[in-house]
Amino acid sequence: MGNVDKVIHARWVVPVDTANQVLDHHSIALSKNRIHAILPTENAKQKFAIAEQVNLSTHAVIPGLVNAHTHAAMSLFRGAAEDLPLQDWLQQKIWPLEGKWVTEKFVRDGTRLAFAEMIRSGATCMNDMYMFPDVVGEVAKSVGMRSSLGMIVLEFPTAWAQNATEYLDKGMKLYEEFFDEPLISTIFAPHSPYTVADETFETIADLSDEYDLPVHMHVHETKDEVENSLMQHGVRPIERLRQLGLVNSKLQAVHATQLTPDESSLFAESQVSVVHCPKSNFKLASGICPVAQLLDKKVNVAIGTDGAASNNTLNMIEEMRFAGLIAKVSSGDASKVSVNEALRMATINGARSLGLESEIGSLAEGKLADFTAIDLDDINSSPVYDPVAQIVYAATRNQVTDVWIDGRRVLENRKLTSIDESECLNIAKRWGAKIIN
Amino acid sequence: MGNVDKVIHARWVVPVDTANQVLDHHSIALSKNRIHAILPTENAKQKFAIAEQVNLSTHAVIPGLVNAHTHAAMSLFRGAAEDLPLQDWLQQKIWPLEGKWVTEKFVRDGTRLAFAEMIRSGATCMNDMYMFPDVVGEVAKSVGMRSSLGMIVLEFPTAWAQNATEYLDKGMKLYEEFFDEPLISTIFAPHSPYTVADETFETIADLSDEYDLPVHMHVHETKDEVENSLMQHGVRPIERLRQLGLVNSKLQAVHATQLTPDESSLFAESQVSVVHCPKSNFKLASGICPVAQLLDKKVNVAIGTDGAASNNTLNMIEEMRFAGLIAKVSSGDASKVSVNEALRMATINGARSLGLESEIGSLAEGKLADFTAIDLDDINSSPVYDPVAQIVYAATRNQVTDVWIDGRRVLENRKLTSIDESECLNIAKRWGAKIIN
Repeated sequence: MGNVDKVIHARWVVPVDTANQVLDHHSIALSKNRIHAILPTENAKQKFAIAEQVNLSTHAVIPGLVNAHTHAAMSLFRGAAEDLPLQDWLQQKIWPLEGKWVTEKFVRDGTRLAFAEMIRSGATCMNDMYMFPDVVGEVAKSVGMRSSLGMIVLEFPTAWAQNATEYLDKGMKLYEEFFDEPLISTIFAPHSPYTVADETFETIADLSDEYDLPVHMHVHETKDEVENSLMQHGVRPIERLRQLGLVNSKLQAVHATQLTPDESSLFAESQVSVVHCPKSNFKLASGICPVAQLLDKKVNVAIGTDGAASNNTLNMIEEMRFAGLIAKVSSGDASKVSVNEALRMATINGARSLGLESEIGSLAEGKLADFTAIDLDDINSSPVYDPVAQIVYAATRNQVTDVWIDGRRVLENRKLTSIDESECLNIAKRWGAKIIN
Repeated sequence: MGNVDKVIHARWVVPVDTANQVLDHHSIALSKNRIHAILPTENAKQKFAIAEQVNLSTHAVIPGLVNAHTHAAMSLFRGAAEDLPLQDWLQQKIWPLEGKWVTEKFVRDGTRLAFAEMIRSGATCMNDMYMFPDVVGEVAKSVGMRSSLGMIVLEFPTAWAQNATEYLDKGMKLYEEFFDEPLISTIFAPHSPYTVADETFETIADLSDEYDLPVHMHVHETKDEVENSLMQHGVRPIERLRQLGLVNSKLQAVHATQLTPDESSLFAESQVSVVHCPKSNFKLASGICPVAQLLDKKVNVAIGTDGAASNNTLNMIEEMRFAGLIAKVSSGDASKVSVNEALRMATINGARSLGLESEIGSLAEGKLADFTAIDLDDINSSPVYDPVAQIVYAATRNQVTDVWIDGRRVLENRKLTSIDESECLNIAKRWGAKIIN
């Protein structure tokens, strides 16, 4: 057990444990990048008097939010394509924009902008799927953002690679390059069943097994996707993936708006994680993921913002709120997805989907120091009867005051410490001016 | 035409006109409490050089948001009753809490807290339904919030009145008391079809006609409401209201989550306004208002937050965003409720539902000066391709910097000028501590 070098005193600590505890006037003692202890503030002040003290006297401290599906660099396309369904949005707007503009520099600038927004809204970890994941990794290291890089795979060319073989080769190089980076993991990211061929999926299934790496994929995002698969392959995409050996505990099935009860049961048995992206699914009219049904069957459901071009924010507080609200109306049962369940989806379930649940996603002795402080002393979230209810249903991103990732305070009194926010904003504006013309 | 005493220079002015114009580098010239002119900033600076100048160089100025349905004082019950369906929420939690705590002081303190939150998130007008509307009116006058007071009617006793006769008597006194107040209107507010009797409705229909006053009512909020009406009255609530003479252009039908296509058509023919409260309907699992269908039939659809106990915010930006997103998925068409349509619902449609569309709800020469400035120079809403898209889908309430109501700047550089925010917050905390114990 190392020395305690920092103690954070909070009005409330919400560890996201199995008992849904809310700890009043508790403190978190840090030893380097790990949680040494969580204890009553009174005791902490005596016991760790010589350590650095941080007072968050009106704040709730929660595990850092895990954004389990995003395309970070698309922040630069925020608001560039409105009021369109998925296929029109992709084919008429997004793919042409990407073809014209996406370069290493675009990804560097867009990813940094995205990290600024994610951290300021309380996220400490993100699971990316985009071109130039090596650049995403560089930005993640420099910012100190815990990141899963997507080893993306498509059958058609993009600025990153020409064909499935090249995507996979570059993916494995990425894996090797970032293997030892403490903040970074690499994950297979075949785009979707409709953009990747059977043989490529078979290779990915083998590699995922050999290297013990998760597989991050859009699955059953729309009804059209399911219908086209029935026409082309004679089976629904999930059945096709099952036959190809991909429906297992490594799969992160993103979106999943079209699920039969049998498919939900298959996901439960196979320990698939579902990543729910409610705002994007609503905005593109894709459909509604049956979250209440999945949770009833004990499927691990995480939450992601998707990219800013279909959301248009990367704000996990808003996403968690939306997930809670829609689970109630879509199941017809207001007791579904309680405030504690919503917070769990946005934290520990996200960590579990990435295979990181023993290290992050909840606050406990020995876990990594990834956490977020939200000041509830605001007209927007007062009075406080239950801090978790206020976080899930009332707080806004500007109430996030401090964020620690791996023990590093990347947001301090609402100021980013590892990103020059005004420079980041100026760069975004320059991109906007260039792209619009 | 009066003298111009103030000119507001904005990066964008979004008047919410029929052409959905976005005016670049335009200025709004005020003469007392009215808009004298909207013109290019270059011209405005020359023409009105001696007037007070306000520079909002990175901001979009939009008509003040109209919160078309709320129970303002319930802000003090924010987060006190989570994860329950409407009838349990009302009967087990809200009505007992109200029975125990609602007094004139409660309404004064809760309404002020609500106004603080509404103004800080860009609303300039609200339509209230709560006990002690006289107190709501006093607070509205002192804060300078444009308000419709609900002349509430129920058949059972509350702290405000004992029976329908007393409610109506007090309502008519309220009408007389506030008749000459420029910021205030009074509106009949029978709670719902299931809490008000036929003869009372007949009286309200007569009075609404005689005094030319709108009728603000929860209508078809849940499936149970419709089914119970079929059992008790043999008809659905809307048909009962029609028979009682209430389905006409004065009706604000709040919620309307259960509508047959015929009922939507009836609303269109009768010029009923629907007030959509998406977050509350989702949170209580009440159902989804068919907004796209209503708009297709040319029904006037406004937006309300409902009370903070079922939302849990009073943030019209978030409500407008939610309304846009759910209209797309629930209609299965991502082109429905465009960003301009969403903004229209939250502004001019709200004004129309209150009979105030000639005075507020859009920015035009001669209209009252109710408007809101949103600073889009934020990592959260950059780059800006379309300011309306950024407002509807990306901005958060802390980007609202300035609000004018009736020509008075009630929010200035994010500081409330007519409410002591820290006192307001302290009062809320004291109520919270008392209620929780």
